[in-house]
This record gives sequence, structure tokens and C-alpha cells, in this order.
Amino acid sequence: MAGVESKMADLTVSNKPEAAETSDAVDGKKKEKKEKKEKPQKEKKPQGQGAGQSGGKKEMKKETGLGLSTKKSDDFGEWYSEVVTKGEMIEYYDVSGCYILRPWSMSIWEAIKDFFDKEIKKMGVENAYFPLFVSKAALEAEKEHVEGFAAEVAWVTKSGDSDLEVPIAVRPTSETVMYPVYAKWIRSHRDLPLLINQWNNVVRWEFKHPTPFIRSREFLWQEGHTAHATKEDADKEVLEILELYKQVYEDLLAVPVIKGIKSEKEKFAGGLYTTTIEAFIPATGKGIQAATSHNLGQNFAKMFDIAYEALDGGRKLVWQNSWGLTTRSIGVSVMVHGDDKGLVLPPRVAPVQVVVIPIPFKGLSTDELSAASADITKQLRAAGLRVKEDARENYSPGWKYSHHELKGVPLRLELGPKDLEKKQARLVRRDTGAKEDVPWADLTAHVEAVLADIQKSMLEKARAELTANIKTITKWDDFIPALNEKKIVLAPWCDEMAVEDDVKKRSAAGEGGAAKTLCMPFDQPGFKLPELAEGTLCFASGKPAKKWALWGRSY
Amino acid sequence: MAGVESKMADLTVSNKPEAAETSDAVDGKKKEKKEKKEKPQKEKKPQGQGAGQSGGKKEMKKETGLGLSTKKSDDFGEWYSEVVTKGEMIEYYDVSGCYILRPWSMSIWEAIKDFFDKEIKKMGVENAYFPLFVSKAALEAEKEHVEGFAAEVAWVTKSGDSDLEVPIAVRPTSETVMYPVYAKWIRSHRDLPLLINQWNNVVRWEFKHPTPFIRSREFLWQEGHTAHATKEDADKEVLEILELYKQVYEDLLAVPVIKGIKSEKEKFAGGLYTTTIEAFIPATGKGIQAATSHNLGQNFAKMFDIAYEALDGGRKLVWQNSWGLTTRSIGVSVMVHGDDKGLVLPPRVAPVQVVVIPIPFKGLSTDELSAASADITKQLRAAGLRVKEDARENYSPGWKYSHHELKGVPLRLELGPKDLEKKQARLVRRDTGAKEDVPWADLTAHVEAVLADIQKSMLEKARAELTANIKTITKWDDFIPALNEKKIVLAPWCDEMAVEDDVKKRSAAGEGGAAKTLCMPFDQPGFKLPELAEGTLCFASGKPAKKWALWGRSY
Repeated sequence: MAGVESKMADLTVSNKPEAAETSDAVDGKKKEKKEKKEKPQKEKKPQGQGAGQSGGKKEMKKETGLGLSTKKSDDFGEWYSEVVTKGEMIEYYDVSGCYILRPWSMSIWEAIKDFFDKEIKKMGVENAYFPLFVSKAALEAEKEHVEGFAAEVAWVTKSGDSDLEVPIAVRPTSETVMYPVYAKWIRSHRDLPLLINQWNNVVRWEFKHPTPFIRSREFLWQEGHTAHATKEDADKEVLEILELYKQVYEDLLAVPVIKGIKSEKEKFAGGLYTTTIEAFIPATGKGIQAATSHNLGQNFAKMFDIAYEALDGGRKLVWQNSWGLTTRSIGVSVMVHGDDKGLVLPPRVAPVQVVVIPIPFKGLSTDELSAASADITKQLRAAGLRVKEDARENYSPGWKYSHHELKGVPLRLELGPKDLEKKQARLVRRDTGAKEDVPWADLTAHVEAVLADIQKSMLEKARAELTANIKTITKWDDFIPALNEKKIVLAPWCDEMAVEDDVKKRSAAGEGGAAKTLCMPFDQPGFKLPELAEGTLCFASGKPAKKWALWGRSY
Repeated sequence: MAGVESKMADLTVSNKPEAAETSDAVDGKKKEKKEKKEKPQKEKKPQGQGAGQSGGKKEMKKETGLGLSTKKSDDFGEWYSEVVTKGEMIEYYDVSGCYILRPWSMSIWEAIKDFFDKEIKKMGVENAYFPLFVSKAALEAEKEHVEGFAAEVAWVTKSGDSDLEVPIAVRPTSETVMYPVYAKWIRSHRDLPLLINQWNNVVRWEFKHPTPFIRSREFLWQEGHTAHATKEDADKEVLEILELYKQVYEDLLAVPVIKGIKSEKEKFAGGLYTTTIEAFIPATGKGIQAATSHNLGQNFAKMFDIAYEALDGGRKLVWQNSWGLTTRSIGVSVMVHGDDKGLVLPPRVAPVQVVVIPIPFKGLSTDELSAASADITKQLRAAGLRVKEDARENYSPGWKYSHHELKGVPLRLELGPKDLEKKQARLVRRDTGAKEDVPWADLTAHVEAVLADIQKSMLEKARAELTANIKTITKWDDFIPALNEKKIVLAPWCDEMAVEDDVKKRSAAGEGGAAKTLCMPFDQPGFKLPELAEGTLCFASGKPAKKWALWGRSY
């Protein structure tokens, strides 16, 4: 295999311009180089006989070398890198900051797409596709907006050996791609609302630590871009979309989120206001922006002259929204749920919900076992469940247990000689490890119930962790200690940008890194804001507090 | 609206490098500049009262200005450009060779995706996502292959204001992106077959005339990349995929295709052989490559060292395939079926299959009409049909007829006062213009039957045209005259690349442009090859003929 190794080395692009990254000691960062040096995955090399195997000269894997070498609590960055690669979600790639999404993660993205796409279509949103490339003039039309991206824009300057006359940008987002034609399509109030979405790839050539799913130079997302006659219509949609994003995270990925509004400093550049759902990674104590839904106001409408003839005959500017959800969502779910054995996938999005493992016993015929295993698999599939039967003869049951635990399959169904005799199967939950024996007659209904319970329990467990890790403070002195305890912090705030700048600067001085506002949370089910008593002062400036803000270190 | 116009002008990128295109007098070519100068679409401007309108001071469109200004037979290129823009499939864009796919065409692509994705998943193919960017080293690893694309590769050389140390290519196709990791993933015979597909965008910075859907610098497609233990397995899959492509064209898009194999000159660079489905555009007499399924042999396996440990312990190279279907398919369907009234969409992929148009009558209450129209719409939708009710009061029925004809809606259902009285509806077919009155009681079943018949008739009509336009010849003297009669030509051939080069050169001398081999057709249902009698000579070289080849001018 030496040839393969050296081939990979040949392909490694020299990434000198990104060398700065390695000084920024954060999660997932040095993994790319490491991965490339790794030996081919051990579990792919047959290495002789193991235990629990039925007859023959079949090859058998050793039960060593599988699983993770790093504990989540010991080195989170290393653990994350291992779990996404050994769990077969991600393969590292020779262009820095770009990752390969393997089928195991891509099918989760497809599940998210299916759900969200259906929901927005119910709202009347239609899908379109706009070009990858943006002319310089269009990109720079909205000044505040482009300033938010300028340093991260990738530019195509050549085709073949020829220089392009004008460099062309690769879209970092599509406001400036789409809005020039919105100006053409929208004439009358009857053309509103204009509701368009696209599923595509975008590129942001960031110099911060790349991390699979969480921060990559190219990523997949959907971007919705809508135009409305009134601010009220736009406001309403912003929140409807935010609710759908919450459902993606909570109902599909089992990750609890807090809805809120971004500070002026953190809002989308060029927009009016940004609403957000914020998630929390207990292992690092960091917040993470999970998805955002922006009201763009009329800024872009002014710049691109997007106006309509109103009922009264006057010409009015439209109100616009944009909203996006990315493959980051998969990474957040991995970070929240994964454990020292590997991925833990929520049943609603797991590519395989149940793995059926027949356990042959020495000296006994496998005919009956094979038939029962195939029957059960068929029966569960008929109920619409995603089931894999792992009847491979060259792997031991123990190896299979570890393998499917590593990949996060929610439920394992074991079928051994005793189970055959008693006409039962053993179910083992991935999330808790709990085992139970279930009679064949009750199997389908029971498996469905257990999967539903896993989905629910995973969310509840994560919500309890989130709740336990939000600390309410009122004084600056409590701020850094709370961050250092891996908390996110709810604190009364004067809502001034200069103060947020100052908090960032002061917190950056410590070891754990700078903190910023995650959002000003809405009062919402599952997250009730305390009352902001008259006369409460800002924890950071001592000025009168205007609202509660959620602060934290973040991704 | 002057502001909008000048805004569009500001955004126009200077396209000097592509100026050469305008000397290449082919379809769709000069349309970009033209389109930009066009007035905003007339149908979007309310212009006072029209006929057939029920009461009130509602605005009413004039029934002029709608529809196409060019006939398909007068100026095909101009007609095509008009039909895709006025039919709301495409919007032109300020980066040359890039087009906006509006919801009306995107939903057709989604229908194709849904069908094909389900079918390949049944075959065991899984979706993944590989990066947009390719390192120079990987791109250039397979020499023959990269030579096929080198001139068309777009290079990113800057991020923000900084030069990248190494330029990075935007993928023109993903062989060289994917195969380095295939070498890592494939170890044993048990890792085979490896069956991966992705739906994505690719970029080929071509300098030939750009034409919406047919030839664009960025396009959407799926690319399947599979690895097999044996050539037999690979061969089998190549044809299975080709059959699915045929089904997409014939069963979904109602476009007949001819299956065959590409000549050595026309095959995929770096592969072993290329199978293809070829379609035909009667209006121009040109063939068009509709989709290709390649057996790559072991060339890439050698270059990237993709090998497996065989059952006997030896190390063997894999056999690889790649196969792709693009948004070109939408353009082919438009070119084949569209007419002087606009698009004609096949029911299976039409975003709207039936448009219901209530016709108010002066002096009569519209309550009963509205109720009946809504009822019928609901009833048809309940049967799973895609139905739009166009009850807008500010457009006349005649305007609506033209509008939905322009957009290619397969079936119109009119509901007027006489229909109410007789409890019937009038159905008007888009493809033939045929009208019939159908009692409400039979409506759903009848509409379903008519849609099925439209789908079938469109394919049959197109197949008859294809068959009538294939001319079998045996002598060179008949070749150019046949091409000039807008035929494609079946001729006995010696299968030598030098002869194909020569045919290309000799035919290029005439006015209609060069001809090349479209494919060497398989004997197939609907296209029986004549017998190649012993001693038959090549039509072009006079050497002994080895096979029948299909020749034509082409896109």
C-alpha cells in the first residue's frame, strides 16, 4: 500500500498561506495533516481468526484497532476529528478547509433537505438555481454587505492559460447574485411576495481554523431570498423560518436551541436585523450559531432598485428577507451527542436506524439463524424502518458491535442461539447502552417505540445539559469565571456596540478566548427569560440595562 | 423603471475575452446582449381594461405583447432564446455563459432528480459530496484526461486581496477529486463495488457559443463514480445506467434517443469506452449528446493506484465507471417540443399539469363559477395532479390562455357560463390544441387519461420525426446533401480516427458546419440497424467498413 500513501502525499497542496492557522489553538485544527499521515484504517485489513465465528476458513478481523483512541473529555478537538472520520462521515481532502462528505453524513443532509424543502414549499417558496459566479460590480453594489465578506471571497482570474479580463468571484452568499433580477421580476404588488430558495454550495475562504462541518471553506446550505410588500409580512416570515430551523435542530437532530435576535455587532452585514437559533456544545462550553433568518429591511432594495407599483399607484421599495441553514447542523449534532464509543445518531436522521446482527454458535447450523435474521429484517423494513442486516461471516459479533456503535446506529438487534430458542431478540440502545429482550411477536411495534424514545431522550438529555450550563449573572466579576466553568452567560446589557467590543477585548485577555453576544433571547417555551427589574444595570458597563443578552465563547 | 434598466447595464461585465463567440454563427449565441437591452416584459405592465371581464374597476392587461415574436422555423436560435426566457425557465445573467434557472425549469430538474435518484439507490448507489476545488497536482495526475479539459478549467488564484500560493481549479468533473480517496477506501474485494454519486455544479469555461441549458459555463448534473472488481461488472452497470438515462429522456421528457457507443475520437478522455444516448433536434437537423455512461477501464486505477486484495490474495486494479446527466436535458426537451406559441411540457415533469381558468360573464354573479372552479381544482389535486387555478381578475381569459400556452402547461380546463349550465368543462390540449367537453362526473379520470395520452403522443410524434430524419447512405456524394436536408446520416464506416478527422474537415468546408460521429448505434428496440453486408465499403474512405456509424452536425 506504500504506493497509495505516497500518492496521497504527492497530492498534498502546499498550504503556506494558511500556516497562521496552526497558531490558533482550537478544535479540529491540526487534524488535516495528522490524518494524511495516518495508516489506512485498521479495520479494513483482514488479520486472521477471531472468536465467536461459525466454521470454515473465513478471514476474521481482530477486535483491536477499532474505535476511538481519544476520549471526548480528554481532547475534544482530537476526539471530534476521530469521530467524524472513523464514523465515516468525513474524509479529509488535499485542499485545506475543504472536506469530503461521505454517504453516511450526506444522507443526514438529505433527510434535513427533505424535511425543510417540504415545509417551505407549503409556504409557497419555490426552488431556483442562480450562478456560482458573481461579477465584481454586482458583488460590490451593497457596500456594508460586501465588507462583511470581502476578505473571504475566492476569485477566479484565469481560464486555462488565459487571464480573464475581469476577475469573477465565487459566491460567498447570493444576495448580490439574485437581487439585480429581482428588480426585473418585480413590477407590481401582484408579483409579491416573491419567495425563492436554492440548495447549493458557497465558498468563504476563511483563515480561521477549519473544522469539518463547523467551519469549512466550501459548504452546502439552502439560502432563501424573499421579497415582500410590507415589513409586517417580512417580519412574519422571518419567524416562521426560524421556527422551521428550530424544528430541524430539535425534532430531527435532537439538539436544543435558543431563539433570539443578534446584536448590532453580530447581525448580518447590510441587513436590518438577524434572528438566530443558538446551540451549545457542553464539552467545550461554547455557543454556536445554528442557523439565521434575516430581515434585510430595504437596504438591498435601495441598492438594486427593487420596487413595485402599489395598489394606490405609488412606487414602493420591497422588504426583503434572507435565511440559511448549512451542513454545520450535522457537526453540531455530532458534537452534542457523540461519546467515547463514537457517533450517536438521532433515529429520525440516521441512515440506518436498526442493525440486525445474527450471532452464529459453534457447532450449530446457521440455517435457522439466517432465516430468522432475514425475516426480522424484512419485517422491520416493511414497517418503513431503515434496517441493515450485518451477516458478514468474516467479522466477529464483537467487532460488529463496536463498528456500528462507532457509526452511531441508534439500535442494535442481536439474535443468538438462546434468542432463537425463546423466539426473542435482544435490543441494545446506542444512546444509553440499555438492553432488553423482546418477543418476536412484539418486535416491530417495540422497535418503533424504542426509536421514538431514543429520539426524545436524546433531546431531553441535551436540553438538561443546556439548561444546566446557562448561568445568570449581573456583575462583571462573575463573567470570566462562569466562562471558564464552560458556561454560557445570561446577563443584563445596555445594548451598546462599544460595550460589546469592550467585553470581547477584556475576555480575550484571559486564556479561554474572547466572548461575544450569542443573541438576545426571545422569551420562549423551554427558555423563560427572568424579569428585567427597573434600575438593573449592565453587567459590563454599569449603564442602565435594556435587555438580557446571552454571552459566550463560540465557534 | 429607468433606474432598473441602468442598474442592469451597470452590472454588465465587459466580455471582451469572449468577443470571438460572435463570429461563430450558431444558435442562441447573440441572445445575451440582446436580452439585456430588452424592455421589461410587457405582460408585467398593467395597461388598462380588456374584454370578458366581470365588473369593477380592476386593471386589465392588453392581449398584445404576449407570446413569441419569432417563429421556430424562421430563426431557431432567436426562437429558443425567446421561449426559454418568456416561458420563464431562464433569466440571462451578467456573467457570460452563466444562466439563472428559474423555478419553472428548476422544478423539471427536481422531477428528473427524484426519478433518477430513486432508481440508482435501488442499484445500491449512495450519494456523497466532494469538494468544488481540485488541487493542480490531482487534476493533472491523469494526463489524457486533463488534456480533454485543460483549456476550459477555471482557476481560483486569489482570496480577498491575497494571492493563493498554489492556484486551485474549479472542478470540470470529479474523477481526479474522488479517485485519490477511492485508493484509500478500497482495500479488499469486500469493499467492492464502491458505488457513489453526487448531484452538484461543475464549471467548463468554454469559448464556444453559450446556449441556455445546452452549453453553459456552469451547469448542474449528477456524476456517478463506481469501482468494480471485474470488467464484466463494470460493463453491466454502464448499460444499466444508460437505460436509466434513456428512461429519463423518453419516459419523462418525451424525447426519443438512440443508444450507442462513441468513436475513439469522441469518447471520454482517459476512459476505455463511452456509451451515449443521442437525441435529435429536427428544427436544426442536428444531433445532440444527451447523456453518457463511461467505462473508464483501469487507466485511473493505475494513475491513482486503486487496487484491492482479491480472494486469492493477489492485488488487482479496480475497473471504474463514471456517468453523467445534466440540465442540458431540459433544453433538449424544449428544442424538440416547443412551438410557435411557446413551451410544450411533457405532463410527467410539468410543474403545472392542468391550469383551471374560470371565465366570468358580464352581468352574471361569479359566486357559482368561483365555487365550481375551486371544487374542480380541489378534486383534481386530491387525485395527486399538479393543478393551478388562475382566477386572477385583472387578466382576461384570452391573456391567460396565451400565458399558460407560452409556459407550456399540458392541459387547460376552461369553465364558462355554458359549462356551468351543462355541468361540464372544456379541456384544451397544449400539444395538439384539441378541445373536448367533459362532464364533471368523469373529470378526474378523464384528465388523467388525457395527460397520459399527451405524454405518449409527444414521444411518438418526436420519434416519428427522428425516424424520418435518419438517412442511410453508402456513398460520400450523398453525405453533405443529406446533412443539408437537416438529416442525420447512418453510413458504413471503417472505424478509423484519421477518417473521422477527414470527414470533419471536408464537411466543415461547406456552409452548414462540420459533421462528426454521433455514435455507433446499438441494435435496439425502435432502432434496428440494417445488416452490414460482407464487402461493404466505408462511405468516406472506401476501405472495408467495420460498422454502421451515425453521423451528423451536432451541438
